[in-house]
Amino acid sequence: MQRWKATVSYDGTLFAGYQVQPEGRTVQSEIERSLAKMHKGGELRISASGRTDAGVHAIGQVFHFDSSLAIAPERWVKALNALLPGDIRITEVEAAAPDFHARFSAQKKEYHYRLLTCPQPDVFRRNYAYHFPYSLDHGALEDGMRMFLGTHDFTSFSSARSAVEDKIRTIYSFQMETSTDEILFKVSGSGFLYNMVRIMIGTLLDVGQGRIKPQEIGEMLKKKDRSAAGKTAPPHGLYLYQVTY
Amino acid sequence: MQRWKATVSYDGTLFAGYQVQPEGRTVQSEIERSLAKMHKGGELRISASGRTDAGVHAIGQVFHFDSSLAIAPERWVKALNALLPGDIRITEVEAAAPDFHARFSAQKKEYHYRLLTCPQPDVFRRNYAYHFPYSLDHGALEDGMRMFLGTHDFTSFSSARSAVEDKIRTIYSFQMETSTDEILFKVSGSGFLYNMVRIMIGTLLDVGQGRIKPQEIGEMLKKKDRSAAGKTAPPHGLYLYQVTY
Repeated sequence: MQRWKATVSYDGTLFAGYQVQPEGRTVQSEIERSLAKMHKGGELRISASGRTDAGVHAIGQVFHFDSSLAIAPERWVKALNALLPGDIRITEVEAAAPDFHARFSAQKKEYHYRLLTCPQPDVFRRNYAYHFPYSLDHGALEDGMRMFLGTHDFTSFSSARSAVEDKIRTIYSFQMETSTDEILFKVSGSGFLYNMVRIMIGTLLDVGQGRIKPQEIGEMLKKKDRSAAGKTAPPHGLYLYQVTY
Repeated sequence: MQRWKATVSYDGTLFAGYQVQPEGRTVQSEIERSLAKMHKGGELRISASGRTDAGVHAIGQVFHFDSSLAIAPERWVKALNALLPGDIRITEVEAAAPDFHARFSAQKKEYHYRLLTCPQPDVFRRNYAYHFPYSLDHGALEDGMRMFLGTHDFTSFSSARSAVEDKIRTIYSFQMETSTDEILFKVSGSGFLYNMVRIMIGTLLDVGQGRIKPQEIGEMLKKKDRSAAGKTAPPHGLYLYQVTY
């Protein structure tokens, strides 16, 4: 039996999310179905670094699985991609130590959030960036992003439905890159709670529009109450970019 | 009664093409349905600059229609977009002369073709660029594009199913722009026959791979036979970029 670490990219548009659930097409079930075919119908479970919601994309999601098939890493990539639908692509498969765990071994995660800032919507980016054609104060956004840096209790910035007990996380970096008609937010941290990136982005949009001051983010963090923070930004601008081990 | 000229952008991925047909969702039928709603159910036909095939995209397709509704141009844009699905966006509506015709008044058309040249496919561009991870000689491509310039009989470069009698067209410009992992071809001409851009691109890919010499394109044109030219490149890399009147 060998443990394998796989990196996968997916377009979240047509998925009901990452995790297997009773209804709807999910990334996990598509990958498990492809692995089952390779294992002649033998059932096989995969474990990811974390789930992503419906509409959320991944450039570098990671999962692990165990297999007794003697296949070289590059062959795993080709064989799985030949069985997977076009909106899921395995980008790398590596042999991993028996105790490697895609979720518990993760040291750092990076998410990206794409904002489309031009006045008109763009049919080609409608599922890949959040169209937000309103004026934003970039200096205020920079100040707001700085408020998240470091170690905080992120209760206010996670869905009230989150079942995790420990809501303390560390944000290592939070940056934005501006191009002609987009703003790309890049945030990396020790881990992220349910909806955490989307609530941080939704709150930053309030900051950028001058509805709240950047400093108020500090008070929101202290309140440890979801209702203290801003709205949850929509899923289709969000990308799980990289998981570091 | 006023004649209106409208410019429309659409993501061709989920359409069975532009033109109304018995089965499948088409761009024309979606727009006509929206116009019918605005006219309280009264049927209304639109005429486009030309049809596009299933999977082909448009950034600046143009159509005209007649209406007795007294609506300002900007209001037409907003009202139609409110009724249209997200993969069709009206970008401009202007009052036109009574004899304006989206097809017959067109002076020039520009098409773009996107090639994804990196080794790995990209889930986010799988419907928006043709993945062609093979080595291409850019000098040969440039020489090949030059062979199409000017006025020629394009019988060899149009679908044998094309019903048009006059197959003489003029290519004004044919250029390519190269970025990290894409080549964008831009071609403008007096008009284009059925599948013409896709067959020109398919033939250029043979030229770029050294399978045929750029000069052979001249001989292909002379033969006036579809079987003399290269393959038809797939639809999802093609964009109707602009129609000039």
